[in-house]
Amino acid sequence: MLQTPPAIPGMREEEIDTPALVIDLDAFEYNLDHMAALLAPTGVKLRAHAKTHKSPVVAKLQMARGAVGQCVQKVAEAEVLAWGGIPDILVSNQVVGAAKLARLCALTSIAKTAVCVDDALQVEWIEQAAANSGRRMTVLVEIDVGAARCGVPPGPAAVELAKRIAVSKHLIFGGLQAYQGSAQHKRTVAERQTLIGSAVDAARRTVEQLRQQGLDCPIVGGAGTGTFQIESTSGIYTEMQCGSYVFMDADYARNLDAEGNPISTFRHALFVLATVMSAPHTGLAVLDAGHKAVPIDSGMPVVWQKPDIRYVSASDEHGKLIVGSETTMPKLGEKLRLVPGHCDPTVDRYDWYVGVRGGRVESLWPVAARGAMA
Amino acid sequence: MLQTPPAIPGMREEEIDTPALVIDLDAFEYNLDHMAALLAPTGVKLRAHAKTHKSPVVAKLQMARGAVGQCVQKVAEAEVLAWGGIPDILVSNQVVGAAKLARLCALTSIAKTAVCVDDALQVEWIEQAAANSGRRMTVLVEIDVGAARCGVPPGPAAVELAKRIAVSKHLIFGGLQAYQGSAQHKRTVAERQTLIGSAVDAARRTVEQLRQQGLDCPIVGGAGTGTFQIESTSGIYTEMQCGSYVFMDADYARNLDAEGNPISTFRHALFVLATVMSAPHTGLAVLDAGHKAVPIDSGMPVVWQKPDIRYVSASDEHGKLIVGSETTMPKLGEKLRLVPGHCDPTVDRYDWYVGVRGGRVESLWPVAARGAMA
Repeated sequence: MLQTPPAIPGMREEEIDTPALVIDLDAFEYNLDHMAALLAPTGVKLRAHAKTHKSPVVAKLQMARGAVGQCVQKVAEAEVLAWGGIPDILVSNQVVGAAKLARLCALTSIAKTAVCVDDALQVEWIEQAAANSGRRMTVLVEIDVGAARCGVPPGPAAVELAKRIAVSKHLIFGGLQAYQGSAQHKRTVAERQTLIGSAVDAARRTVEQLRQQGLDCPIVGGAGTGTFQIESTSGIYTEMQCGSYVFMDADYARNLDAEGNPISTFRHALFVLATVMSAPHTGLAVLDAGHKAVPIDSGMPVVWQKPDIRYVSASDEHGKLIVGSETTMPKLGEKLRLVPGHCDPTVDRYDWYVGVRGGRVESLWPVAARGAMA
Repeated sequence: MLQTPPAIPGMREEEIDTPALVIDLDAFEYNLDHMAALLAPTGVKLRAHAKTHKSPVVAKLQMARGAVGQCVQKVAEAEVLAWGGIPDILVSNQVVGAAKLARLCALTSIAKTAVCVDDALQVEWIEQAAANSGRRMTVLVEIDVGAARCGVPPGPAAVELAKRIAVSKHLIFGGLQAYQGSAQHKRTVAERQTLIGSAVDAARRTVEQLRQQGLDCPIVGGAGTGTFQIESTSGIYTEMQCGSYVFMDADYARNLDAEGNPISTFRHALFVLATVMSAPHTGLAVLDAGHKAVPIDSGMPVVWQKPDIRYVSASDEHGKLIVGSETTMPKLGEKLRLVPGHCDPTVDRYDWYVGVRGGRVESLWPVAARGAMA
């Protein structure tokens, strides 16, 4: 059930067994530094999203560069991070169920922990769990800033919920969760600015109404890799929840600037290494990495630095490549790097990161929260 | 990295922690029996595909009902089955790389093992690996019967490759792999019959040409849950490689008979149990199971026996439900069964099957080959 590592430190990249999840460590470290540099002038903090990387090793490298903590979506992810030494964790999501809430409350004894709500019943359940555990839990109100998923409407409904938290004996009102997920992958600057403009207005209005009721918002959190440069200069958001920037994926790379060029200055640092296992005729090759190895929820992977080779379809364990010419036809047994369509679910398919630098395997990091869905 | 089981035997289904992979054991056993009954009159054997279930427990239940062995796609899956006591395993796929081939050859000492090729170079590499291990390996020729993926063309090219196998000192020619994957999910009987008709013709022609060269085909394998009733009565296929029938999924359930009704007589036996974690307003609910919990490569999951509730979109950890009316609106904390769009990648997301009968948890089976991609 737990797979053995596909590599041994010191071996050459071509020797890694496939499919394997490979980090280009130079590009990865560049991304860590680059995000810190981009956020420094804004005064806004990074609370990086660990649903992307699922690793206390990566989390610590982010925090060494100034991140104040981590976001997660699941209690099981929060546990892996807290047990791995991360001191400040926000579950940027609703948590329902007595067993999960008891586990979350238990974590508060070793890490600063917070969770989101969008319903009075959740407040009641968390108060009960916190009381049972003899702990206090920090709770944020999630507002729907346009994604039409979780969250109460901005304004009075959010204030009402915040008051319930504030008067609960074992709860602390922690602020607002205001993530506009549906803006992240809009291709044009104009679309992203319009959607995030509305989100910022909604968050500002809610913060002001809370203040009028004597409720401060220590955290106003949101933003992702696609839009953080808008939220971070809004004057209202205090924490950025970017995740994908550490690795970048093919889908985020399709976001454009005003001139129609790729806007992102982050580098592709995450790859699925795959082997050509069949090459039936010129123009067609098949990789040993299908959608079990590189999920396709955000489109097909891109073959790295081989513009003449297109990954056109994925079945469970086959990736079909169309090759433009005889001279660029990959050989049977050749290994190719794929840029995943979406890094988050891809990482969650593997037990190990294989860190590569200068063509050699440097490190094997466990994907410690692999499969941590509960 | 390995998750703890989400249930304890004896507990009620509603008490299972979510997301969880649940088997309805009655429906599952019905499917096992039903396939055995459908194939019995044909004289054709079942070599069930373990890429669906990844479990020696399930494999043994199939073999207890007459299956002659198992198919897998990966060496790591073959290892899990062989070590779990399965005596006859076909890797219905190409295997490339010296390390993988050495592992495969080592398995032949504990299980009857075979592998497929579609290139003379693969034959050379397998001969080398078999010679190094001092074993003999059975090798099938994969022919492309219409899917335009792996496989040599039917006819002379296949005969040529079979001869190379037959003259290799450490190899045994095992027959033909003739799987028409692109026919499995065609919705109409006519489409499936046309595509499988061509596949049958191609397989028959190749078998005859091999026989003219003195080469018998102990195995002519192929077929899946969508088409096996055509191949099994063709008089040319000897083994059916169906996988999904054990569980059924939402996509296979969309295949139709000549009257436009669902053709499959297998039952939905596999579910992802999920919890409503947010219900912001009437008409909208959000589950704790997004595409990390229930992959969407073959469409969205279907909410079981709740026709008024549609799972309309999946993000990493959120499943968005649109609910038709106030009276059918699920409650916060309510647990719903989802029928996965595609059972194979869904199973591969979990470490545990939770077997349920009569509303109670009966068994916890490890998904022993979870993540076995190498």
